[in-house]
Amino acid sequence: MTIREAARLLAGLDCIYLLTHQRPDGDTLGSAAGLCAGLRALGKTAFVLPNPDITPRYRPYAAPYLADSQAPPEGAVLVSVDVAAPTLLPPGYRPLAGEVTLSVDHHPTNPRFARNNLVMPGRAATGEIIFSLLRALGVPLSRDIALPLYLAVSTDTGCFRYTNTTAFTHRVAAALLATGIDCDALHTEMFESKSRARLKVEALLIDNMAFYQNGAVALGCLTAAELTALGAAEDDVDNISALSRQIEGVEIGAVLREVSASVCKLSVRTSTKWEANRLCALLGGGGHERAAGAKVPGGMETAKQAVLQAFKTYLGVDEL
Amino acid sequence: MTIREAARLLAGLDCIYLLTHQRPDGDTLGSAAGLCAGLRALGKTAFVLPNPDITPRYRPYAAPYLADSQAPPEGAVLVSVDVAAPTLLPPGYRPLAGEVTLSVDHHPTNPRFARNNLVMPGRAATGEIIFSLLRALGVPLSRDIALPLYLAVSTDTGCFRYTNTTAFTHRVAAALLATGIDCDALHTEMFESKSRARLKVEALLIDNMAFYQNGAVALGCLTAAELTALGAAEDDVDNISALSRQIEGVEIGAVLREVSASVCKLSVRTSTKWEANRLCALLGGGGHERAAGAKVPGGMETAKQAVLQAFKTYLGVDEL
Repeated sequence: MTIREAARLLAGLDCIYLLTHQRPDGDTLGSAAGLCAGLRALGKTAFVLPNPDITPRYRPYAAPYLADSQAPPEGAVLVSVDVAAPTLLPPGYRPLAGEVTLSVDHHPTNPRFARNNLVMPGRAATGEIIFSLLRALGVPLSRDIALPLYLAVSTDTGCFRYTNTTAFTHRVAAALLATGIDCDALHTEMFESKSRARLKVEALLIDNMAFYQNGAVALGCLTAAELTALGAAEDDVDNISALSRQIEGVEIGAVLREVSASVCKLSVRTSTKWEANRLCALLGGGGHERAAGAKVPGGMETAKQAVLQAFKTYLGVDEL
Repeated sequence: MTIREAARLLAGLDCIYLLTHQRPDGDTLGSAAGLCAGLRALGKTAFVLPNPDITPRYRPYAAPYLADSQAPPEGAVLVSVDVAAPTLLPPGYRPLAGEVTLSVDHHPTNPRFARNNLVMPGRAATGEIIFSLLRALGVPLSRDIALPLYLAVSTDTGCFRYTNTTAFTHRVAAALLATGIDCDALHTEMFESKSRARLKVEALLIDNMAFYQNGAVALGCLTAAELTALGAAEDDVDNISALSRQIEGVEIGAVLREVSASVCKLSVRTSTKWEANRLCALLGGGGHERAAGAKVPGGMETAKQAVLQAFKTYLGVDEL
């Protein structure tokens, strides 16, 4: 379905309830809030269905639009935003998957599960599609619409740094900023602020990072005991392997984290010279070319030996 | 002078040599390289005068345009880019300040020192002005022009995060990306890559950071001996105080660095609630509202006591 067709479909509806994906991020919540604000500006009844996993960081953007109940009222039409598959709806909403009238999404893997599907894989964020949709609906861009859409676009592109960023992304950002929104607090909260525990984990990782192959390979290890001692939650180790690849000269950066006495989690980031998924496949894992992972059996010492062996095999060297 | 007038001036010239500022950054070098590429596309002789302080990170962007000699040839017309004052030229070029035909700059403090001045303080980067200038000159945007201009605009806006970023900034970025330039390596080099020494300094700072006032005030200390032991150069501590302000809950973040046995350097970052320059004024320093500094006499122990006393005075509390 095209943007124009989706806009025509929405224009004919009166009561629209929006679904976001589980463990919601800035794109799903920002897209939902922006679309909801736009539909309300057209005089429609529109709400975002409450998502049980919304974190405090994102809550303020969705709060003005959240419905009181998880049950959409009689006659409401369901629209999902940034939901790549029915299984990615929060568990409580999965029974509704068959009743979704429109799915708006940018994930190429979206199986077109809804009755109507506006799926545009070339867009960096679903927020970019909502922007076009509201334009096609003739909704004037207000700050209430622009701020959540900026949240959607900026978070899904790493604030315009990821390779998914296009000229269109910047054109959307230009139109959003032209409304006069203030992005300063958003930038700090989303891209700069770190918990004390997170910083302690980073410091620990830097201190125990081991380098091989003249500094081209870096491996940092975090034991379960260390993480507990620092009071680090799951959030505090999220994406921590990115740090290993930031180090000058590192082409393969990896972090091995002890999840329990019997299993460790390996996370690998590579430069364009190496393929993270091929390295991780040697340990039964997988992922993308630049970012991949594997579950490695054993506690830290056992798992570390397996990882170093996989590095040797992948690099074709006898000694690291 | 307007963009149109500056374009007319440049259109009438044949041989143009460009001046950049001392300790050159991405904006001065990217602007110079982009302008030089554009002038060459018009068939003109154009060079960037060699700047003795270009660091390896920036060199590749300027390299294709650097003149062989620091002495511009007979008949060459001098144009300075992003040079806010004659005193900011590299020392060897200061005698030429009176002969600059055109100064293109975005610093509001620019004293209009050249014969003609295109100074636009509303622009986030001088690169944005060069973009408009080349458009007015009718130069088609090529990748050779777009990449250095993207360097200029992205570095001067913290990759679109600083508050100087405008809708125009994003419109320029959109036009630059539309040429098909690949910004991935640039993003990594400019915004992500860190030296091992830098990371060690960050880890040390995180480990010894002290918190006061329920975590709203953070002070990290780096002794000269510690920095020497880590092999940290001046570059490795550049802007390190930003880290203290990134910590969740911190409103006043400060780093005290021992420069020698008799003097320490304080660097303070504040949230919008507090004024860094007023705090630093209590120690004889100054700066901006959100970022300021002071030189504090004494080695670490003496200086630290003075800083804590200044904190107490500024906050109006007896105990921190």
